[in-house]
Amino acid sequence: MALSPYWLRDNCPCTDCRDPRTGQKLFQITDLPAELTIAASAEADGVLAVEWSDGHASRYPLDFLAEEEQPGDDGRTEQGKPLWAAADFAAGLPEADWSAYLAEPAVRAAVLGSVRRFGFALLRGVPTVERQVLAVARTFGYVRETNYGDLFDVRVEADANNLAFTNVAIAPHTDNPYRDPVPTLQLLHCLRNEAEGGDSGLVDGFRAAALLRAEHPADFAVLTGTPVPFVFRDRGTELRADRPLIEVDALGRIREVRFNNRSIGTLRGGDVETFYRAYRRFAGITLRPELQLDFRLGPGDCLIFDNTRLLHARTAFERDGARHLQGCYADLDSLASTLAVLDRRAAAIDTVAGLFEGEGAGEYLGEAVTMAGHMLQCGALAEAAGAPDHLVAAALLHDIGHFGGSGLELMAGRDNRHSHTGAEWLARWFGPEVTGPVRLHVAAKRYLCAVEPAYLALLSEASVFTLQVQGGPMTPEEAAEFAALPGAADAVAVRRWDDQAKDADAATPGFDHFRPLLTRLLGAAL
Amino acid sequence: MALSPYWLRDNCPCTDCRDPRTGQKLFQITDLPAELTIAASAEADGVLAVEWSDGHASRYPLDFLAEEEQPGDDGRTEQGKPLWAAADFAAGLPEADWSAYLAEPAVRAAVLGSVRRFGFALLRGVPTVERQVLAVARTFGYVRETNYGDLFDVRVEADANNLAFTNVAIAPHTDNPYRDPVPTLQLLHCLRNEAEGGDSGLVDGFRAAALLRAEHPADFAVLTGTPVPFVFRDRGTELRADRPLIEVDALGRIREVRFNNRSIGTLRGGDVETFYRAYRRFAGITLRPELQLDFRLGPGDCLIFDNTRLLHARTAFERDGARHLQGCYADLDSLASTLAVLDRRAAAIDTVAGLFEGEGAGEYLGEAVTMAGHMLQCGALAEAAGAPDHLVAAALLHDIGHFGGSGLELMAGRDNRHSHTGAEWLARWFGPEVTGPVRLHVAAKRYLCAVEPAYLALLSEASVFTLQVQGGPMTPEEAAEFAALPGAADAVAVRRWDDQAKDADAATPGFDHFRPLLTRLLGAAL
Repeated sequence: MALSPYWLRDNCPCTDCRDPRTGQKLFQITDLPAELTIAASAEADGVLAVEWSDGHASRYPLDFLAEEEQPGDDGRTEQGKPLWAAADFAAGLPEADWSAYLAEPAVRAAVLGSVRRFGFALLRGVPTVERQVLAVARTFGYVRETNYGDLFDVRVEADANNLAFTNVAIAPHTDNPYRDPVPTLQLLHCLRNEAEGGDSGLVDGFRAAALLRAEHPADFAVLTGTPVPFVFRDRGTELRADRPLIEVDALGRIREVRFNNRSIGTLRGGDVETFYRAYRRFAGITLRPELQLDFRLGPGDCLIFDNTRLLHARTAFERDGARHLQGCYADLDSLASTLAVLDRRAAAIDTVAGLFEGEGAGEYLGEAVTMAGHMLQCGALAEAAGAPDHLVAAALLHDIGHFGGSGLELMAGRDNRHSHTGAEWLARWFGPEVTGPVRLHVAAKRYLCAVEPAYLALLSEASVFTLQVQGGPMTPEEAAEFAALPGAADAVAVRRWDDQAKDADAATPGFDHFRPLLTRLLGAAL
Repeated sequence: MALSPYWLRDNCPCTDCRDPRTGQKLFQITDLPAELTIAASAEADGVLAVEWSDGHASRYPLDFLAEEEQPGDDGRTEQGKPLWAAADFAAGLPEADWSAYLAEPAVRAAVLGSVRRFGFALLRGVPTVERQVLAVARTFGYVRETNYGDLFDVRVEADANNLAFTNVAIAPHTDNPYRDPVPTLQLLHCLRNEAEGGDSGLVDGFRAAALLRAEHPADFAVLTGTPVPFVFRDRGTELRADRPLIEVDALGRIREVRFNNRSIGTLRGGDVETFYRAYRRFAGITLRPELQLDFRLGPGDCLIFDNTRLLHARTAFERDGARHLQGCYADLDSLASTLAVLDRRAAAIDTVAGLFEGEGAGEYLGEAVTMAGHMLQCGALAEAAGAPDHLVAAALLHDIGHFGGSGLELMAGRDNRHSHTGAEWLARWFGPEVTGPVRLHVAAKRYLCAVEPAYLALLSEASVFTLQVQGGPMTPEEAAEFAALPGAADAVAVRRWDDQAKDADAATPGFDHFRPLLTRLLGAAL
């Protein structure tokens, strides 16, 4: 592969160049010399080692370099998404029960994944309590306040400033096109719907745009190339955003649809005749019956949908029928982040399980048990002692830094500081209440040797040997300093289970026994 | 001028087609017939009257049709903005005192206008109270919450997840490029700055981009055409947005800059060699000394800046020096809206003043005073009676619907219902506490005639005449219904001043006497 020096250097994974926790780079592109070249390079053990003309050294996993060269995507364009018609949901809508959504990370990930994939998902059984829609939004992100408030009530209002607050039918549209940034997500929570009519409809605006592109490419080009003034004003508001009806990214992929005739102001300049022809064609496509997904929101239903992709509609209803929805806006970026973290955490547990089954089955530095056996025993002892979840997890995972496998290989400092390495790696997913005791469990041994004369006698032969490598017992000053650290008491507790967990004959549970606890612990942090 | 039928029809200003208060259209583009043509048209009195093939009739002010045909702009692109270098602020920064900003709409408009025009403004004397930055943001918009919270503290943190929270120097950058939508505004409020160093710098990213376009057009094209993955992750966050470093709108105008090497992930696909050359050139321009506007934030300073345009920087500072800023994010659309409303309100007072001086100087339906003289007297009587601001304003403006001038000509219903016409027009700026009494002041006359036998005797001759046109005294049922309306008592009060305010010899204050009151009343609603 032909490597561009600046690309390669900008992607150096060493901890001088990049914060291992946040992925943030620690240098500026202008910090690199003007004539940067590769002085020498060599491949070995799946790693490309590079020496740079400015003296820096980098190590790149070949897997990283071999990743496919296709342009990436943040999941906001049409790329990789099924563009749907109503019939695609003949078997049912993407939906889940609110209580399952709250309790099970996998259900939550499925719901958020549907919003990313199809542009919407439906939660059922959401308590029909006023302002509950805000709580739904906060399960994955932040509420976006607008001139309509932090939430808005969709019901008939005496002096409505917006058609939404009347009982007339509303054609498929996106909301707030006059805002920039437009709210990228909308939530609609049904508290009551006893009216005749008032059904909901959704149209995949990406599908409609893709149809226009296929059927009338010139019209598609006109709509992507014409900024349209969207306007809204009332007594305290005067908003205007000039954006195209269909926005494509720099590579031409459909990325955003704004569609709302109510809010289109006066277009000036350009060929308005051509624009209106294209606009009317596109509008016609959005009304095709096969694109209209119709359903009825009942009390407790909460619809979450992508306001940059889906058009939503409402049939007319009887003015006297009680119909009350509460809505709010939020943003896709936080929803995608929450989904990625859920996925990452699910993957983390699988990765850890893989380490226990793979490398963990190996010999444990001269002990009578395997590494995995030792850690499982340690976790089981913590559990038997009635320790809280975070401490059971710390006991279970305390020696993870001994494993050289997959996720760990990019970490710097593969030295004897296995407690630090392990804690750093775990910090991607676990909080300080777990990583603290892991980080301190070696120090805790040195601490206990200093403050409890009887402790040394309890150590295994191997552990006495490593004590010397680790620095020997603490001095009184070191011990006092250690005891003052947050998590020191937890680290001492882990240490004692650690020392006991070397019984070759003990019956220990398998890794799967701890999955619910780890899932719970990871889920609590979101 | 050659008029496109669909463009013309989509801009019909009649009240069947468009809500006069919100400017929202009341029809869908697909509601218009497939073969829409102009059946007949005629110009007279500055209006083009059109009869349509489907029977609809429209009236367009010729001024509206003659407006320039240049493409519009929402104030978010480089169009019409001074792209600046540091020397442009040699005479001082765009700044204002916090108390003047709060008290005077014109100062507030100037500050918000600077953010739109230059990308920033500085408020001085903002109370150095924690969380005050949120109150500043709320003077013009809504706080955008992120993973950093509703606000973030910029000071040295022990375990920082972001360079901002350390004491190292930070090169010019934009914030949160990994968010989409990116927060378009940032506020930084200085609570304390006793450290050596820790100065602030701003660079006009639009200027830097325009320089790149002028000096290396091919590089500019590369940067506008390459989506770059911006990434951030920590334990609870995993954000990614693929956006170009320089974003142009559909007409090629610079619209947004994202610049932050820390957050650039691994670019895949395309010609990365070419990208990195262009990127390094652009980065070099952002560091040119003549572009760096440096200043020091002191306690009480609050910087408001456009995060889609300006790059901000910080010099390194001593770890031990106390430096504490609080920041938050908000959005440009609401800021622009607030500014537009302030401008509209200032213009409204001038428009009303113009009506008083122009048409208002004319005869008042057979009364001994001019229309303006009558209304000024009426306002003065309310003021002398110690009426609250809203009621003085209602008294002053109650007959505004008699004026046929400028702003009023687009209103429907130029009939005898002058109270309704006036109230509708005023509702663009004033709340129901003002428009209610204006709307009801004619009805109040009919009400008083019904419930107070002595009242009729007080009326002027002309008023007795118009009473008949207006429907005569109310029936007992009508009177009871009227008395129950919100604002009925205020309308009766206005009515009594109205009846007294026909003294040809009274000394009345000029319109300017009421400006502070109107300004106060309009300002209170924001």
